[in-house]
Amino acid sequence: MAAANPTPSLRWNAASGAVEIVDQTLLPHRLDWLTLDSLDDYCDAITAMRVRGAPLIGITAAYGLAYAASLDAADEALEAASARLMETRPTAVNLRWALEAVNAALEAVPVSTRAAAALECAHALCAAEVASCAAIGEHGLELLQAQRKPGEVLQIMTHCNAGALATVEWGTALAPIYRAHADGIPLQVWVSETRPRNQGTSLTAWELQQAGVPFTIVTDSACGQLIRDGKVDCVIVGADRVAANGDVCNKVGTYLKALACADNKVPFYTAMPVSTIDWRCASGDDIPIEERAIDEVLSVSGRNHLGEAGRLALAAEGVRVANPAFDVTPARLVTALITEYGVFEAGPESLGELRKACQGFSSTPM
Amino acid sequence: MAAANPTPSLRWNAASGAVEIVDQTLLPHRLDWLTLDSLDDYCDAITAMRVRGAPLIGITAAYGLAYAASLDAADEALEAASARLMETRPTAVNLRWALEAVNAALEAVPVSTRAAAALECAHALCAAEVASCAAIGEHGLELLQAQRKPGEVLQIMTHCNAGALATVEWGTALAPIYRAHADGIPLQVWVSETRPRNQGTSLTAWELQQAGVPFTIVTDSACGQLIRDGKVDCVIVGADRVAANGDVCNKVGTYLKALACADNKVPFYTAMPVSTIDWRCASGDDIPIEERAIDEVLSVSGRNHLGEAGRLALAAEGVRVANPAFDVTPARLVTALITEYGVFEAGPESLGELRKACQGFSSTPM
Repeated sequence: MAAANPTPSLRWNAASGAVEIVDQTLLPHRLDWLTLDSLDDYCDAITAMRVRGAPLIGITAAYGLAYAASLDAADEALEAASARLMETRPTAVNLRWALEAVNAALEAVPVSTRAAAALECAHALCAAEVASCAAIGEHGLELLQAQRKPGEVLQIMTHCNAGALATVEWGTALAPIYRAHADGIPLQVWVSETRPRNQGTSLTAWELQQAGVPFTIVTDSACGQLIRDGKVDCVIVGADRVAANGDVCNKVGTYLKALACADNKVPFYTAMPVSTIDWRCASGDDIPIEERAIDEVLSVSGRNHLGEAGRLALAAEGVRVANPAFDVTPARLVTALITEYGVFEAGPESLGELRKACQGFSSTPM
Repeated sequence: MAAANPTPSLRWNAASGAVEIVDQTLLPHRLDWLTLDSLDDYCDAITAMRVRGAPLIGITAAYGLAYAASLDAADEALEAASARLMETRPTAVNLRWALEAVNAALEAVPVSTRAAAALECAHALCAAEVASCAAIGEHGLELLQAQRKPGEVLQIMTHCNAGALATVEWGTALAPIYRAHADGIPLQVWVSETRPRNQGTSLTAWELQQAGVPFTIVTDSACGQLIRDGKVDCVIVGADRVAANGDVCNKVGTYLKALACADNKVPFYTAMPVSTIDWRCASGDDIPIEERAIDEVLSVSGRNHLGEAGRLALAAEGVRVANPAFDVTPARLVTALITEYGVFEAGPESLGELRKACQGFSSTPM
């Protein structure tokens, strides 16, 4: 099967001077590029999850702040825009990180040239993000190569979407998979559907299909049995936030996969850029878990037999629902963290070394 | 809140001389009683999952064989009907057990009176099933009482549907919950939605709502986080088959809940009648896992905003899907088995004693 690059999820249109994003709420049924033309557009894109995934949220917010600076670059205006963008999603540390990076870049810059400086910073963050994912792919590739069994197809499980649609290109969890596929390593990806929003079925399956990578969709509940049955060589997921002790906060359902891996001695990897590590967060217990709208659980979107978009209620009226969107996987269940700086143990000592190592040559606020 | 009995799932209409079932494929949106009027009706009811749950499948099959005997009670006819009913579902051991019980009851009976004997046997199995569930409720109540914390609402999690809709009345996993609720113990049930068929959302939530038991629906993936967060005092599930060593085969997703319980020292109980134990099955590894139609995962049923039934595709076309319907939870993760004969450790020694204890006064084929 020919290896194709995954479709990027965000692009800068130099002709119009605007950011365009893939509206991910329409996938897998329709590929629609949306131009972000106001701060409302940027905030809505993040809140309505037209863009999602911690790294992509960060880049979108950075461009959103650059857009705000192009209208009014005075301190108060930038503060207000930063505050609005910051409120769009509570869990992703990259959002705060990206906004802080843009604000830091503007500190010593006169108001008159801040718009250009902010856009330049957003472009730089975006380019660094793509480079990070490519580096994660390289480092993850080594782990995958080590797990190959001669004559067998490598079986990799993932959860939610930590691909190009969660970053800008390549992805975090999917980067090593794309890299291995490009190298001709025979592999197959178990795609966990990821209720309630079905990002596995609608996003990960879509981008793997576009790129020609073989995959199989399964329910979230089936993942335990597949791991127990020996049908999974490793699990790779992304992260929304990693605590300084290596605890991983990621899409709800991640913890259960990590438990099944530990119970069956299957490696469990988290792939993420260093910007996902929240050094101010001592452990996963300090990470607030976003509770999302109950309608995500009560009803579901899809296409009818005519191909028309629709939404169906699953439950009877008047039922009570809880919808925690993330969970915390304790560091002890994480075999390793795959970052753009290499592969690290999920523990405070190892992460402390990583922090020191990249303090010299990174713009990441530490 | 007033305690109400759960709605039964199957009833004998003495006036028409026919079995009526709740068509569970229409729940939670519509309560429809369906009369079973042919062997095709019986087989379709099981295959199309209008009735489901290991004990209810067994009782339905017993009545199906009694129906067949009413048309032709010769050996060959009964063998053919048994074979057809046996093929409807592969996992539930109760199906085979119920058919064997009816056939055993007819062995020494002349062909002319077999129809009456078969119906009498089906009635007896049905009454025993209801009594079993009531006894499971009593034994489970003691465990729940032991877990109460003064002044706090008891938080119980369940998976799929192991209630009245899976048995005839009361249920297995839900029997202790109904019993505790009737006793006025303040409790709340976490209902795992149970993809792909959403039996939690559509069946368990429905019957708890009918009976006035407080509950909250959550995605299957959210259960790990809830258990880790200390929001669950115990998990109680049913079983489709229990091996002689105590391994539990139940709806896919059960194993992951058991892992989360073990990781957080939360008791994990399986409630089931002794007929669910397959003594011929040494361990869970010997239990075949039913692979169901991929359309269960690819699309979903519900009601549109006009209240009309509909089905929506979730995935793009041409994707690959796997749909294992059950998983095996190793006995080491099961705190105890709640049966009609009392509470037993999930292990070969304890189950061996149970087998001896009930051999004297049970019609269960051992």
